[in-house]
Amino acid sequence: MIKLNLNNVISNKEMNSYSKKVNKLAVAMENKESVGSDFLGWKDFVNNYNKPELYKVKKIAEKLHNSNVDVMFVIGIGGSFSGAWAGIDMVQGNYSNKNKVEIIYVGNSISSTDLYQKLEYVKNKKFAINIISKSGTTTEPAIAFRIFKDALEKKVGKKEASNLIIATTDKNKGALLSLAKKNSYERFVVPDNIGGRFSVITPVGAFPMAVAGLNIDKFFDGLKDGYEKYKSTNLDSNDAYQYAVSRVILNKKYPVELMVQYEPQMNAFNEWWKQLAGESEGKDGKGIMPASAVFSTDLHSLGQFIQDGSKIMFETVLTVKKPNFDIKIPMDDSNLDGLNYLVGKTVQDVNNVAFSSTLEAHSLVGKVPNIHIEFDKMDEKSFGELVVFFSRAVAMTAYLQDSNPFNQPGVEIYKNMMFKKLKKPGY
Amino acid sequence: MIKLNLNNVISNKEMNSYSKKVNKLAVAMENKESVGSDFLGWKDFVNNYNKPELYKVKKIAEKLHNSNVDVMFVIGIGGSFSGAWAGIDMVQGNYSNKNKVEIIYVGNSISSTDLYQKLEYVKNKKFAINIISKSGTTTEPAIAFRIFKDALEKKVGKKEASNLIIATTDKNKGALLSLAKKNSYERFVVPDNIGGRFSVITPVGAFPMAVAGLNIDKFFDGLKDGYEKYKSTNLDSNDAYQYAVSRVILNKKYPVELMVQYEPQMNAFNEWWKQLAGESEGKDGKGIMPASAVFSTDLHSLGQFIQDGSKIMFETVLTVKKPNFDIKIPMDDSNLDGLNYLVGKTVQDVNNVAFSSTLEAHSLVGKVPNIHIEFDKMDEKSFGELVVFFSRAVAMTAYLQDSNPFNQPGVEIYKNMMFKKLKKPGY
Repeated sequence: MIKLNLNNVISNKEMNSYSKKVNKLAVAMENKESVGSDFLGWKDFVNNYNKPELYKVKKIAEKLHNSNVDVMFVIGIGGSFSGAWAGIDMVQGNYSNKNKVEIIYVGNSISSTDLYQKLEYVKNKKFAINIISKSGTTTEPAIAFRIFKDALEKKVGKKEASNLIIATTDKNKGALLSLAKKNSYERFVVPDNIGGRFSVITPVGAFPMAVAGLNIDKFFDGLKDGYEKYKSTNLDSNDAYQYAVSRVILNKKYPVELMVQYEPQMNAFNEWWKQLAGESEGKDGKGIMPASAVFSTDLHSLGQFIQDGSKIMFETVLTVKKPNFDIKIPMDDSNLDGLNYLVGKTVQDVNNVAFSSTLEAHSLVGKVPNIHIEFDKMDEKSFGELVVFFSRAVAMTAYLQDSNPFNQPGVEIYKNMMFKKLKKPGY
Repeated sequence: MIKLNLNNVISNKEMNSYSKKVNKLAVAMENKESVGSDFLGWKDFVNNYNKPELYKVKKIAEKLHNSNVDVMFVIGIGGSFSGAWAGIDMVQGNYSNKNKVEIIYVGNSISSTDLYQKLEYVKNKKFAINIISKSGTTTEPAIAFRIFKDALEKKVGKKEASNLIIATTDKNKGALLSLAKKNSYERFVVPDNIGGRFSVITPVGAFPMAVAGLNIDKFFDGLKDGYEKYKSTNLDSNDAYQYAVSRVILNKKYPVELMVQYEPQMNAFNEWWKQLAGESEGKDGKGIMPASAVFSTDLHSLGQFIQDGSKIMFETVLTVKKPNFDIKIPMDDSNLDGLNYLVGKTVQDVNNVAFSSTLEAHSLVGKVPNIHIEFDKMDEKSFGELVVFFSRAVAMTAYLQDSNPFNQPGVEIYKNMMFKKLKKPGY
C-alpha cells in the first residue's frame, strides 16, 4: 500500500484541468499508440512474464547459494545495476547479515582504483559474475568484464569460470550473446521493449536480488499489485498520475525536485529514481532536475539551504510506516544528555516526529512545497509497488511535457566524442 | 598541487571587476573583522594547532590499533562525521583492505533499522566509540550514544568500556564533557571558533582518520600548503577566490552547481562539500544549490538531463592526476567485445578521455559551463589542500553575496518544532 498525500500543494481545480489530457495520454499508452510505444513493455511485463525464466532466476540463485559463493559482481552501468542496488539495499539494509551472497557493483565507472581494489577484495574469496549488457560492447562494463573474467579464469580455470559467469543480455544478437553461447554461460534475457531504467522488473534486477537473498515471488506480488493499482486511465483514481500532474504544475515554478528519504538504506532508491526521472524527462531543454537527500542526516547539510536558501525546489518525501527493526530509548538515571523525556518512545517514534516537524518547517515556514508518499515496509513487495508507481508517474510526466519518455539521445554525445578521441574503429 | 581551470566560463573583465571587493573582504577576514569572525578559527588553525593534542590524536589511535579493535563507531551528525568520512573514503577507497580499524558512522540519522543493524553487525566484534558532539545533547548522536554505550558496557563491562570510548567535545562545558570527566574517557577538544562544517581539520576529523590508518602528518602538510597557497588577499593570485567569484557570476544565471567526480571513492567528498557550501551560502533566500554526481556512473543517469534538459546548472569537475592504482586493458584474441582498440592503454587513460570528452560535450554542445579542478592524488596531502581550497572559496562566496558564512539559523526551525511535539522540557 502506497499512500500519496499531496498536502494541498496544488488546488483541485488545477488538478482537474489535466483530467482530459491525462486520460487521452493514458489511453494511448494502454493501446501502445503513444510516442515511444516500442518501449512500453515494462507496463504489463508482470502479466506476460514467462514463468520458466522466473523459475530459472530462482534456480540459478539457489545454485550459487549452495556452492558457497562469497561475492557476486554485478557488472553493468545505468539501469543495468541501479535497480538491483535499490532493491537489495532497501530490503536488506546497510551492514546487514541477511545477504546470502555479497553483491558488489563494478563496471559502472572507469576508475582504475575502483577496479583494482575490488579485485584485491576477492583475492581469497569465491566469486561469481553477472554481466548485464544488452550489446556487450558498452565501454564501462566491457572493460570491467574483460578484467574480471580474466581474473576468474586464472583463479579457477576456464571451465569452472564458465559455471560462475551468468550473462544477462539480448535474446537474439550481440557480442555478449555470442560469447555466452561460445562459453556455455547461463543466460537471461533483456527484453527488447524495456529500456534500461525500466528494467529492474526483468532478470536484470531480479537475478541479482535473488542471489542476494531477496524473495522474488514477493517482489512480483508487489509488481502485480502495482499494476492493478496504477493501470487506471482516469486521473481521479490513479495516484501515480496525480503525482505526475503535481510535478508538472510545480515544475512551472520550481526547476528542482528533491526526493527525500528518512532511512539511510533508501539512498540507492534515490539514485535509481534520479536516473528514471532524469533520463526520461530531461530533454529538449525541459524537465525537472532530480536531486535527493536522506534525512535527518542531510537536515544537517542541505537543510539550511532548503529551509532558507533560494526557492528553486519542491520536495517529495518518502516515509516507511513500519521499520524493519525498532529500538526503545533506554532510561539513563544520570540524564546528562537530557534525553529522558523520550523514554517510553521508540527511535521510530522520534523519526516520525522529525518527519512531520520537518514537513511543517519546510512547507509552512520555508514555503517549499512538500508531497508525502508513505509505503508499508522496506520489503520486496513494497519495492515492487514503488517501482510501478514511479515508472508510471515518470512516463506520464514526460508525456505531459511532450517528451518521449523512452529515449536518451543526450547520452550518446559524450560517447561519440570519446570514441573519436580513443580512435574506436568506425568513429 | 591543485590546478584550477576556469575554461573561459567568465571573461577577464568580469573577473577583474570583483578585484577590489574581494580584496576588501579578504583583508577583513585576515584581520578577523568580517561578519561572523568569531568562527574564523579554521583559517589559520594549522599554524596555531597545539602540538600535544596532535600527538595525542596519533597516540590514542595507535593504542586502538594495538588493542585489536575491529570497528570504531563515529557517532556524530553533520560536520561531526562528514569530514572524516570524506577523508577516509578519498584516501582508502571502497572495499579497501588498508583500513586498520573499520570506521562506521552512526547517530547521523534517526533510523531505528540503521541503529539495530549496526549493533547486530558488531555482535561478535571488538568495538570502540568516538562520540563527537560539542554539547552532547544533539538528538541524533545523543540517542545513538545512549544505545551504543549501553551495548558496549553490557558487552565488556563499565570499566573496560571507559577505555574504549573517546569523547570529542567542548573544552569547558556541556553534557558530554561532564559525562566524559565522570567516566574518565579520553577527550579531544572541538574549538569554540570553528563551526562543524569547517571542523575536519581539528580532532573531529583527524582522530577518526588516524584510527582508520591515515597519516595525519601528511594531512597537516596539505593543510599547511593550502594555507600558504590560499591566504593571499589578492584575487589575481588566489585560485580559491577566483573560483568563488566564478561561482557568484555563474549563479546569476544558474541556480545549481553540480560537483562532479570521476572516482567513486570521492562520493563522500561530494557530500562533505554539499554541507560546506549549502549551509554557508544557502540563506536569506539566496545561495547556489549544491548538487553532486560521480561520473561516468551518472553519465548513465543524470547525464541526459545535464546534456539536454533544463539549463539550470553549471558543473565543477574534480579530477585526479595520478590514480592510486592503474590497470592495463588486457588483450583478448576473440575481441568479441570490440575493445582491442584500447589495448596498450590503461583504464585511467580511458577515464581521462571520458573526462575531456564529457567536458566538451557538456560545455560546447550542451552549453553547460564547466569549471575544472585537478588535484594530484587521492592521498592525505591532497585532501588537506582541497579542504583549505573549498573552505576559503565557500567563505568568500558567502561574503560576496552579503551572507554570514558561519551561521545556520534555518537548521533550528525543524528542531524547535520537533522538540515542541516531543514535549522536550523548555519547549
